[in-house]
Amino acid sequence: MRIAVVAGDGIGAEVVAEGLKVLDAVLPGVETTPYDLGAARYHRTGEVFPDSVRDELAQHDAILLGAVGDPTVPPGVLERGLLLKLRFDFDQYVNLRPSRLWPGTTGPLAGVKPGEIDFVVVREGTEGLYAGAGGGLHRGTPAEIATEESLNTRHGVERVIRDAFARAGNRARRKVTMVHKTNVLTHAGGLWARTFAEVAKEFPDIATEYQHVDAAAMFMVTNPQRYDVIVTDNLFGDILTDIAAAVTGGIGLAASGCINPTRAYPSMFEPVHGSAPDIAGQGKADPVAAILSVALCLEHLGHPDEARKIEEAVATELSGRTGEPIRTAEVGDRVSVLVA
Amino acid sequence: MRIAVVAGDGIGAEVVAEGLKVLDAVLPGVETTPYDLGAARYHRTGEVFPDSVRDELAQHDAILLGAVGDPTVPPGVLERGLLLKLRFDFDQYVNLRPSRLWPGTTGPLAGVKPGEIDFVVVREGTEGLYAGAGGGLHRGTPAEIATEESLNTRHGVERVIRDAFARAGNRARRKVTMVHKTNVLTHAGGLWARTFAEVAKEFPDIATEYQHVDAAAMFMVTNPQRYDVIVTDNLFGDILTDIAAAVTGGIGLAASGCINPTRAYPSMFEPVHGSAPDIAGQGKADPVAAILSVALCLEHLGHPDEARKIEEAVATELSGRTGEPIRTAEVGDRVSVLVA
Ligand SMILES: CC(C)[C@H](C(=O)O)[C@@H](O)C(=O)O
Ligand SMILES: CC(C)[C@H](C(=O)O)[C@@H](O)C(=O)O
Repeated sequence: MRIAVVAGDGIGAEVVAEGLKVLDAVLPGVETTPYDLGAARYHRTGEVFPDSVRDELAQHDAILLGAVGDPTVPPGVLERGLLLKLRFDFDQYVNLRPSRLWPGTTGPLAGVKPGEIDFVVVREGTEGLYAGAGGGLHRGTPAEIATEESLNTRHGVERVIRDAFARAGNRARRKVTMVHKTNVLTHAGGLWARTFAEVAKEFPDIATEYQHVDAAAMFMVTNPQRYDVIVTDNLFGDILTDIAAAVTGGIGLAASGCINPTRAYPSMFEPVHGSAPDIAGQGKADPVAAILSVALCLEHLGHPDEARKIEEAVATELSGRTGEPIRTAEVGDRVSVLVA
Repeated sequence: MRIAVVAGDGIGAEVVAEGLKVLDAVLPGVETTPYDLGAARYHRTGEVFPDSVRDELAQHDAILLGAVGDPTVPPGVLERGLLLKLRFDFDQYVNLRPSRLWPGTTGPLAGVKPGEIDFVVVREGTEGLYAGAGGGLHRGTPAEIATEESLNTRHGVERVIRDAFARAGNRARRKVTMVHKTNVLTHAGGLWARTFAEVAKEFPDIATEYQHVDAAAMFMVTNPQRYDVIVTDNLFGDILTDIAAAVTGGIGLAASGCINPTRAYPSMFEPVHGSAPDIAGQGKADPVAAILSVALCLEHLGHPDEARKIEEAVATELSGRTGEPIRTAEVGDRVSVLVA
C-alpha cells in the first residue's frame, strides 16, 4: 500500500503529521511519500500542479491531503489548478462526507444529543457547475456578461446515485434522500430525478425521498436527525456539507474523501477545513478531521477494522475533552495509543 | 393604491385573509382585487398564467401572494410558469428576505437570544441559474446529457449590489457581505467580485466583506449574528434564505418581497412558506409571515410608519404566545387591534 501525502499550507502539515502518526500506529509499515504542492510552492516556483507530479501521484493507492490555500493566492488558482484537477483527472466521482455529532461534543443546535445526527453525504464530484464550462464577454464594460454552465451526464449521475444506494445498504436505516432543485433546474433536475427513480428499482429494500436543496438546507438545521444517506450534485453537496459540518460542531471534526470507487485512480482523503493561516504554526489546530480522513482512507483501501478502531479512538478522545485548549500533537499521541 | 391579491393554494387563502385584515386596520381603504392563480386553477382550466391576467396585474401597485403549489402539479409548471414568470416579467430584481429572531421566539440555536439575529438578504431575482437557459440530448438513453446555464450581466449584478448598499446605509451596522463562489465559478464570480468592489467605492462609509457560499452557509448556523446585509446571486440566495429562516425559528415567520425598486412594474410580497396542503383548511396556519409581507409591501409603497406599526404588533403578538396551538384568524384579529 502506497500513500502520497500532500501536507499543503497553513495547518495542513501539523494535522497531517498526526494523521500519519495514527496510521502508523494502527497499521504499521504503510509506505508514505510527501509531495510539495499548494500556495507555498506556487509562490516559490510559480507552479501549481506539474504533470510530472500528477503522474507520480497516479502511481499511489491513495492521497492524504492536509489543506491547501492562502489568501495571497488569487481565487481559483489552487482550486481549479490543483484540488478540482485532482478530482477530475482521477475521476473521483464520489465526494464522501460523513456527518456525526460525536460523543462528548455539543453542536450548536439546542437539545440535539450526540449520536442523534449520523448521516453521510454522497456528493457528485466530477460534473455540474464544477465542470469549468463558462465564459464572458465585454469584461469591465457596462455590457459585460458572464456565464457558468452546469454539465450533467446520465453516466455521471447514475454512477454516483448507485454508489449512494450501495452505501445505504450497509447502514442501519437504509434510506437515501436525493437533493436537487427540480422545480427550477428542470433539465438537470429531470435527469437526476429519472435516474434516481430507475436506480431505486434495483434497491427495493432501500427507502427513498426527494427534497429541493432549499428545503434540505432548512431541514439540515431543524431536523438533521432525519437523514441517513444524501445524494446530490456537486455544488449543492458543497453547500450542504458545510451546513452539516456546522450542525455537528464545526469543520474542525469533518473528514471527507474524494473517491474513485473503481480504484482505477487514487482517491484522496482530506479534512473539510482549510489551511487556517491565522492559527498555523502554533500547534493548536485540531487534528481530528485529518485523523478521521485516515480512517476513511483505510476503509476505502479495504481495511475496515482499522478504520473502525480509529473512529472508536476518536470517540474516546472527544468524550474525554474537558474544554482545555487543544495541543495538536497530544491529540495524535492519545489517539495513537488507543489504536495501537 | 391598488393591490392585487393572489391567495393561491392550500393555506394561502387563510393566511392572506389575515394579512388583508391587518392591512385594512393599519391603512383603511386600500383597494384590493383577488386573482385566481395556482394549482387549483391549473387543474380546473389547464391555465397557469394567462397573458390577460398578467396585463391586469401589471396595472397594480403591488401583489400580495399567499402560496401557490401542490404536490399534484409536476415540478416546474407553477414555478417557471407563474412565480418565476412574475419575477422576470415584472423585473423584480431585488428578492428581499429579512431575517430576525423575534422577541418571544426561540430558534433552534442554543444560546442565541431574540434580537441577536437581525439581517436582510438581498437576493438577485432575475438572473443566474434561474434564467431557464438549459437543455438536454438523448433523453432516456445512457448517452443523455443535461445542462443548466447561469446567465449574469453587469447590468443585473450592479443594480442589485447597489440596492444592497443603499439598504445597508439605512441600517445601524452598515455592513454588506457579498456571497458567491468565486473560487470555482470564476467567470460569474469575477463579475460579481469586480462589480461589488466598484460599487463599494460609492459607499465609503459601508463596511464590506466577501464569503464563499459554503462558508456563509456554515456561518449562518454558527454565527448568524455577524450579518447585516447579504447580497448574493439568485440560487445562493434561495438556499441561504432557507437556512436563515431555519435559524430564526422556521419559515412560518419569514416574509419576502420580490421587488422592482423602480416601480416600473408591481412588486410582489409573499410568505416564504409554501401552501402546506397537510394543514390547509384547518385554521391553524400561522399568518405572521403573510402579515409581515404586508409590512414589506407598505414599506415599499412609501408607508414606512404603517410597516413599523405592523412589525411592532407582530413582536407583541409573538412575545405573548404561550405555546398554545395557533388559531389563524385569532392571530390576525389580535394584530389588527394592535395596529388600529
Ligand atoms: C476549495 C473548493 C474548491 C472546494 C469545493 O468547492 O469543492 C471546497 O469548498 C470543498 O468543499 O472541498
Ligand atoms: C418555488 C421556487 C421557484 C422558489 C425559488 O426557488 O426561488 C422558492 O424556493 C423561493 O425561495 O421563493
